[in-house]
Amino acid sequence: MKKMIIASTSTIHGSDYLEYLFPTLKIHFKEVKTLLFIPYARPSGISYDEYTTIAKKGFSKINIDVKGIHEYDNSTDAIKNAEAIFTGGGNTFELVNQLYKNDVLQILKETIDIGTPYLGTSAGSNICGVSMMNTNDMPIVYPPSFTTMCCIPFNINAHYLDPIKDSKHMGETRETRIKEYHVFNNTPVLGLREGSWLEVTHNKVVLKGKHTARLFLQNQKPVELKSGVEVAL
Amino acid sequence: MKKMIIASTSTIHGSDYLEYLFPTLKIHFKEVKTLLFIPYARPSGISYDEYTTIAKKGFSKINIDVKGIHEYDNSTDAIKNAEAIFTGGGNTFELVNQLYKNDVLQILKETIDIGTPYLGTSAGSNICGVSMMNTNDMPIVYPPSFTTMCCIPFNINAHYLDPIKDSKHMGETRETRIKEYHVFNNTPVLGLREGSWLEVTHNKVVLKGKHTARLFLQNQKPVELKSGVEVAL
Repeated sequence: MKKMIIASTSTIHGSDYLEYLFPTLKIHFKEVKTLLFIPYARPSGISYDEYTTIAKKGFSKINIDVKGIHEYDNSTDAIKNAEAIFTGGGNTFELVNQLYKNDVLQILKETIDIGTPYLGTSAGSNICGVSMMNTNDMPIVYPPSFTTMCCIPFNINAHYLDPIKDSKHMGETRETRIKEYHVFNNTPVLGLREGSWLEVTHNKVVLKGKHTARLFLQNQKPVELKSGVEVAL
Repeated sequence: MKKMIIASTSTIHGSDYLEYLFPTLKIHFKEVKTLLFIPYARPSGISYDEYTTIAKKGFSKINIDVKGIHEYDNSTDAIKNAEAIFTGGGNTFELVNQLYKNDVLQILKETIDIGTPYLGTSAGSNICGVSMMNTNDMPIVYPPSFTTMCCIPFNINAHYLDPIKDSKHMGETRETRIKEYHVFNNTPVLGLREGSWLEVTHNKVVLKGKHTARLFLQNQKPVELKSGVEVAL
């Protein structure tokens, strides 16, 4: 009985950290007193303590306390016993690297699968897919594998960006990169724009937020999914 | 006696494939009749044949023939015996993956080190550095290692982009990503804008083209290097 929020980003432009998600999180984390925070992705390279302080400050606004996984002696027990779990964004390579190094990827998956409420933003959402192969992040460390939790049967491209019209930049668009992925892999990819998220209840995945999301299937034309629809793959 | 051109991009906006580099390449590849092309990076997932045809068409304008490495029975011999070598852009993960799979990374390095003229663009430039850890590409395949040729003692960030003023997108800027890299690694990184390239003669590396390049050293403020200066690290 999974219960997950998988969000493109923690923060939308012109709004405070997690603010746009609070109405949803108040319901998602109803009756949760303390949230376990996984700060491994270290955005801008900040420390686990610094990152946990940011999450703590954010969640204080909806009266939930936050404790970092690094504050526990035993990471596995911390996950198993958590009331609820939040993995923050940052660098997906370092996040996945630490999940493997600390040997907690499997227990995290199992804990989510049996219903512990989960929130992922950005990198913390990438790890919910089959692999981290559609991250936009820079490969600043070499993780033992790109395989992730597979709580949903497709991959996430967070912070999805449409091609910029009249751009003079010659680097690949996001769509081109995802098409290149599908030359080598057949896992579907969902491009999730900032302000969109997925609500996962058991095995039902529903798109939420104000944007459509772009679904890429191998050898097919991408399609736009409307907010409110089930992502049935 | 290395002799390399390491370019940010093959193509600049409003100009044909390699066109801006032809004045330089005419001198760099003087007396070269046939160029060995490494098409492993497969931009947009095109085939080795298709990619080699593009390179062939481009180099026909300066009267150089092109043959793809996949057209030879023995890749190692093809590299060893090449008059000159060009590695094209595309996906750096797949390029590095194939260099390892075909067991040619080391011989490519050795061949360049003893003076076979080399051209790299984009992904083909990333592999000249210490590692591929500053690529912008999507990790669509899992290569056996991120370690690359180390023909130059620093890493390249190709297609370097300055932060976009007033952007409402919350994804990390290129500079933030490189700073995150320096939390975990101390290899210098050169942000090479489209239209810039490096000329390597023996161990002397000189910045060329119309732009400055942005040099990132661990724990230091980034600096702009002027075109024409030696990149001495």
